[in-house]
Amino acid sequence: MKPLGDRVELADLPLREDLRGRTPYGAPQLDVPVRLNTNENPYPPTPALVAEVAREVALAAEQLHRYPDRDAVALREDLAAYLADATGVPLTGRNLWAANGSNEILQQVLQAFGGPGRTALGFEPSYSMHPIIAAGTRTEWAPAPRRADFSLDTGRAAAVVAERRPDVVFVTSPNNPTGQSVPTEDLRPLIEAAPGVVVVDEAYAEFSSRPSAVGLIGDYPEKLIVSRTMSKAFAFAGGRLGYLAAAPAVVDALLLVRLPYHLSVLTQAAARAALRHADETLASVAKLAAERDRVMAELAGLGFDVVPSDANFVLFGWFEDARAAWRSYLERGVLIRDVGITGHLRVTIGTPEENDAFLAASKEVGR
Amino acid sequence: MKPLGDRVELADLPLREDLRGRTPYGAPQLDVPVRLNTNENPYPPTPALVAEVAREVALAAEQLHRYPDRDAVALREDLAAYLADATGVPLTGRNLWAANGSNEILQQVLQAFGGPGRTALGFEPSYSMHPIIAAGTRTEWAPAPRRADFSLDTGRAAAVVAERRPDVVFVTSPNNPTGQSVPTEDLRPLIEAAPGVVVVDEAYAEFSSRPSAVGLIGDYPEKLIVSRTMSKAFAFAGGRLGYLAAAPAVVDALLLVRLPYHLSVLTQAAARAALRHADETLASVAKLAAERDRVMAELAGLGFDVVPSDANFVLFGWFEDARAAWRSYLERGVLIRDVGITGHLRVTIGTPEENDAFLAASKEVGR
Repeated sequence: MKPLGDRVELADLPLREDLRGRTPYGAPQLDVPVRLNTNENPYPPTPALVAEVAREVALAAEQLHRYPDRDAVALREDLAAYLADATGVPLTGRNLWAANGSNEILQQVLQAFGGPGRTALGFEPSYSMHPIIAAGTRTEWAPAPRRADFSLDTGRAAAVVAERRPDVVFVTSPNNPTGQSVPTEDLRPLIEAAPGVVVVDEAYAEFSSRPSAVGLIGDYPEKLIVSRTMSKAFAFAGGRLGYLAAAPAVVDALLLVRLPYHLSVLTQAAARAALRHADETLASVAKLAAERDRVMAELAGLGFDVVPSDANFVLFGWFEDARAAWRSYLERGVLIRDVGITGHLRVTIGTPEENDAFLAASKEVGR
Repeated sequence: MKPLGDRVELADLPLREDLRGRTPYGAPQLDVPVRLNTNENPYPPTPALVAEVAREVALAAEQLHRYPDRDAVALREDLAAYLADATGVPLTGRNLWAANGSNEILQQVLQAFGGPGRTALGFEPSYSMHPIIAAGTRTEWAPAPRRADFSLDTGRAAAVVAERRPDVVFVTSPNNPTGQSVPTEDLRPLIEAAPGVVVVDEAYAEFSSRPSAVGLIGDYPEKLIVSRTMSKAFAFAGGRLGYLAAAPAVVDALLLVRLPYHLSVLTQAAARAALRHADETLASVAKLAAERDRVMAELAGLGFDVVPSDANFVLFGWFEDARAAWRSYLERGVLIRDVGITGHLRVTIGTPEENDAFLAASKEVGR
């Protein structure tokens, strides 16, 4: 059946001018044997976790006709307990905020502290959603450089921030898609130079041995925001739960822009169940970090240039034609990611078997 | 324990100027015996539905480590089947889009078709989130009037739209918080006058006997958007599922602004389960409509002015001091809503017992 109204096309609509000609974000969702393209955790939830999610959701579902707790108080307390335990930093539920994925967290931060007439700055290449969410909130995007080896020169970064005075600064640590993290203490000059807020995006923090930037919130409560996600280490990408830690006043600011009832009772219940199983889920982190180190060593042994990674993915090259190399991997049943960095591709660390399949394909694809 | 960083307050933060002094949206979430303040369906999901949600969520949870289907294709097909069946209008999954509540739907519409330098117009009093979401997307808000009896003068509305040329027009039918719906055919001059898009917000459509505006999409594919929700008739407020029907090109436009992976696997699975139980859930709609008519008649019998309602709530007055009257209801264990309309309060239709409690309180509170 032809869809109703399909005689009009996108160009016929009164779309905002700045959206014309754009294409939607997103990695291809292809059904291939080895999917190593979106930095998912390859280990499915344990049967015990699945059973607890089902049990908690069934309980929550009895009240599906009622709106959820708009401020997700119990979930925020559980997130605070996890993060305090993981980092050694005393945090309460008042320091935490949660949303449908860290994308929504970042959108709310930009709605409150960015927006039209304001600027957000990031050090590229970095998480490609930062400029996209900036555009979605009509925040001007100011790209700043990293070193040629993709690491962040924090001294130079602080100087750039002091000079350009952005309202929002993004520092991704470990950085996606390059993998390096920033020493926590080196963030101080950058935060001190910032006239607005600084968002340290720690989506991959559990894979890194560096201390979290949440340890600095007490020193910079008026400007430091640390964003996190349950998508990666927690193997909860499908559950969509991002969160942040900051001073309570920052959370108060986000209450002004968040859509009321943004987090469903199902999400709140499932995330709380997943947090209760943190220990068993996070046991995969050490396995993945060891596999990451093995993949990095084997890629180097095959003659690839490997960017040192502190996360669950590895950026590597050099390819004369990265797009063609990406297709060669795909033809071998291995889906990795062309992140748009000349000569490079990014591979997510999977199970040992998936990594072996990737390494075998790498031998064939070559540099 | 004191929260970390609580020495700074909201006023100390580099918040956007236009947010300063604002307070968060939201009805009080109070624990009282009779809650008739947020237009929820008072009937909990059946045990069969709860069991199916739990079963489907348990299945989906096995893949929680993977990102969800970004475009929610299966859910959109199920929504199209429901809406086509409910309205008699042929719709396909390509005509449907879904998000975390209709608030997120409306936010995406304003991001694509509104935003800075553009204007959205609504006929007030109406759904209070329309101007709030406009502000959140930096869309200028243009309020236009209704008749003194709160009904919409569609001829005058078309003239206002022709004169003010807003980029987005909101028509809420049935209108919240006043209850009247607009005859579908009367929408034509208004849609024809609009230079941009027209959003017919049908959050309460199932409670009305009027035909849905989706029947007009074939005639106005380049500008008509019909938004809906599963929060009300479907008794799914806690599940957070809003949707819209429009031409496929409109959906293509929203793909440019939606946050990727905005809908969790849990939401998609639970909403599909709820749609399979539509018949049993929607059986409550006739009961609620009959109760609405009884409440209206009894309120009128008590001497109240009652605004005729086509939805699951009733606006009534006249109170010299509506805030004081609201508190009098609350003291009697009945939570209703002060929607900010002078002299009026809004009551959601509950179970017969809840409505009896409300009517008994009304006798005591008086006008």
